[in-house]
Amino acid sequence: MPTPLTTVRRRAPRGRYDRAVVDAILDEGTVCHVALTSEGGPVVLPTGYVRIGDELVVHGAVANALMRQAADGRPLCIAVTLLDGLVLARSTFKHSMNYRSVVVFGRARVVEGDEKAAALARFVDHIAPGRSGEARAANDSELRATLVLAVRMDEVSAKVRTGPPLDDEDDLPLPVWAGVVPLGTVVGRPQPDPALSRDVRVPPSVERLVSRSGPAAPGGR
Amino acid sequence: MPTPLTTVRRRAPRGRYDRAVVDAILDEGTVCHVALTSEGGPVVLPTGYVRIGDELVVHGAVANALMRQAADGRPLCIAVTLLDGLVLARSTFKHSMNYRSVVVFGRARVVEGDEKAAALARFVDHIAPGRSGEARAANDSELRATLVLAVRMDEVSAKVRTGPPLDDEDDLPLPVWAGVVPLGTVVGRPQPDPALSRDVRVPPSVERLVSRSGPAAPGGR
Repeated sequence: MPTPLTTVRRRAPRGRYDRAVVDAILDEGTVCHVALTSEGGPVVLPTGYVRIGDELVVHGAVANALMRQAADGRPLCIAVTLLDGLVLARSTFKHSMNYRSVVVFGRARVVEGDEKAAALARFVDHIAPGRSGEARAANDSELRATLVLAVRMDEVSAKVRTGPPLDDEDDLPLPVWAGVVPLGTVVGRPQPDPALSRDVRVPPSVERLVSRSGPAAPGGR
Repeated sequence: MPTPLTTVRRRAPRGRYDRAVVDAILDEGTVCHVALTSEGGPVVLPTGYVRIGDELVVHGAVANALMRQAADGRPLCIAVTLLDGLVLARSTFKHSMNYRSVVVFGRARVVEGDEKAAALARFVDHIAPGRSGEARAANDSELRATLVLAVRMDEVSAKVRTGPPLDDEDDLPLPVWAGVVPLGTVVGRPQPDPALSRDVRVPPSVERLVSRSGPAAPGGR
């Protein structure tokens, strides 16, 4: 029963991946999982991120102990996973998933100054393109309360599974349905903040998010 | 800019969580992220899972080095994250996400014998309820090729963010749209394996998956 865990190749040497594939996955994802080793062992936590050039950028409160640990130069591992479908085979063993995933190994540098403010703007633009031009920018005290970390993608690998199940030839005559059930993300109707004044219209950033949405295409994503 | 990374509480003592909330998140999710510390540092990888009672069960090929490391009793950390919406605030800093996440700390035990075969059946039923009754069960050589690991949820925490953005009061008069853009998962039209005989119909497990799907409700998930 092959799964991502069994097949992701660890620490592919630089260049042993298609950077366009890596970037497309990172630019489509919304949440990453950041792992580090703390006193008691490994810790993995979900958080937002944005890719800026060759770096994956995450952020959190300065007050957060794990963020401070992540900032101290220790090794980090970050995964972004997009689930595209369930792969139903004739045998239990050959069930799988279609997915696209990226795993990055690296250490963080702390982002400061103008680059820090720019990174926070990129951060909101990653979840809603154009949003940084609509919202109030972070002020100095907000910037001071935030730790922005950039991890260079020196070691990165992408893994992609697509296509139908791969049953054993002996199983093909079984009268068992086999195929792929595609999965996708759908965007619901925007819910205005109850405190929002009625004369504030839905902005272009939100309109774009909604129009981008749709059910998984019959041919997959 | 609060994010899951800044707010997840690490190692909540047993009982400091609502087990019903934890189970509901784990039972709805499809992919988990498993972190362990390997020679070079932390590694995090996506994989399927199923909750069976008080344990989170993952599996992979016996031949997989990371699976064997995960099996040796070292500390593991596993996260399951469901993204429910994008939270757009009037200020860049207050942008956030609505999500439900669970983080489990534990060590794996190797699942063997009848329990192992049962776990693999539960595994396919987690992605498509009822599927284990349709597909051919794993045979002995397939079972031998698979490592099934169970991690008891002794240390587990759930974190949930719902609701509108929490802008500073000073920002409320800004003419900036604020609110939540709900996200959900949609199931596309099942794609039969090209090698499938035409007289094999879509089975109940797949019909249930498709009927379960739908766009994110206007009121959120």
